[in-house]
Amino acid sequence: MAEKTIETCLSPELIKLYDLNEKTVVIIDVFRATSVMVTALSQGVKEIMPFGEVEDCRSMKGQGYMIAGERGGAQIEGFDLGNSPLAYLDQMHRNKKLAMTTTNGTLALKKSMGASEIVIGAFLNLSSLVEWLIKNDRSVILHCAGWKGMINFEDTLFAGAVVDQLSDRMNPCDASMMAADLYSDKKDGILEFLLSSSHAQRLKKINEDIVGDIEHCCKVDLYNHVPVYKDGFLK
Amino acid sequence: MAEKTIETCLSPELIKLYDLNEKTVVIIDVFRATSVMVTALSQGVKEIMPFGEVEDCRSMKGQGYMIAGERGGAQIEGFDLGNSPLAYLDQMHRNKKLAMTTTNGTLALKKSMGASEIVIGAFLNLSSLVEWLIKNDRSVILHCAGWKGMINFEDTLFAGAVVDQLSDRMNPCDASMMAADLYSDKKDGILEFLLSSSHAQRLKKINEDIVGDIEHCCKVDLYNHVPVYKDGFLK
Repeated sequence: MAEKTIETCLSPELIKLYDLNEKTVVIIDVFRATSVMVTALSQGVKEIMPFGEVEDCRSMKGQGYMIAGERGGAQIEGFDLGNSPLAYLDQMHRNKKLAMTTTNGTLALKKSMGASEIVIGAFLNLSSLVEWLIKNDRSVILHCAGWKGMINFEDTLFAGAVVDQLSDRMNPCDASMMAADLYSDKKDGILEFLLSSSHAQRLKKINEDIVGDIEHCCKVDLYNHVPVYKDGFLK
Repeated sequence: MAEKTIETCLSPELIKLYDLNEKTVVIIDVFRATSVMVTALSQGVKEIMPFGEVEDCRSMKGQGYMIAGERGGAQIEGFDLGNSPLAYLDQMHRNKKLAMTTTNGTLALKKSMGASEIVIGAFLNLSSLVEWLIKNDRSVILHCAGWKGMINFEDTLFAGAVVDQLSDRMNPCDASMMAADLYSDKKDGILEFLLSSSHAQRLKKINEDIVGDIEHCCKVDLYNHVPVYKDGFLK
């Protein structure tokens, strides 16, 4: 049997080059979509229905869903929630159903259809994700959401954290090895490093309170839930 | 005046996301197209006419051009030359005109039209390229050719070498900073590191003599010529 592989796709613009068949795809949007998903489901949200389009997501409001949405880093007008993971910490949304749309994360998810399994990764569930991938025993594609197609630090760094733990079991591509090299260099100061990233700087311009979000998204292994996408829902 | 920027585009699939207007684009295909271009022009070849399509390139044979071409790492049947820089070392091709097509490098060049200036970079002309970019004084996009759209070590590493020398003058994007980080980690063993890259391994399978090519492509500052693309020609 051929050795299993762990590939890193650094932008949704590149995912078309990868063969998704028989693979597990991990969606990575550290700031902030996948961190929100992990937080919300870990804090008791019942299910998340991701949407690519704002209006499709908005239409769920009358159908028993809270709607959460962000474009360009800011909450969409008329939506119940934006894209801050902190909004879920008080368990106010326990047992609620959530419809969600974001600039990059939901696009990466949409472009990953065709994979055998799709799961959600963030620093918040790193170790549980790695355990899940080992147990699942398929080749892995780490799909970084980036920012409007551009490669970014935070998603690449997280991909590197996963590769770091799996490269003795799975054959890494060049991009995986580069990500692991970055992680190896920065792992003792993830928060400080990511506060200097272009995305953190961009978010700070939009919203001065963003530092709390970023601090939360950089917490490693706060949760042990691994959201899985199936039949249109994340649970 | 806004600060100048140095961005790194890690794949030709991503170049459409960048604004090329008023920028200098550096084409990077270390294994081997841009190393061949630098070598050939430094060794006395008069001009290089790059082609995206094999048959367009082939048609130049009757028009006073030697034709050089590679697909999938191997020389194209009926072509005078493949994609080995070593073929130009004996100056046999001095004052000749060359038409050239390659899998990745000529594609990256074609996709960079619209930039103010297009130049060719390789480890072979690193310092001269950096000097040229400083003198030219525009914002820079380092356009890595990759392998069929995928990101690779050698082009990213070279981009990092350029960023390393220019990031005190120009504002780097996340991808530039990642490339510089990789370079900083590997700069004392470029050849050993790149012999382990997926592309070097791929080339070795096609051609056992490739190690000589790779050794040549990893030589830093062997030449001081910076090829510039203008009106369809590299000179």
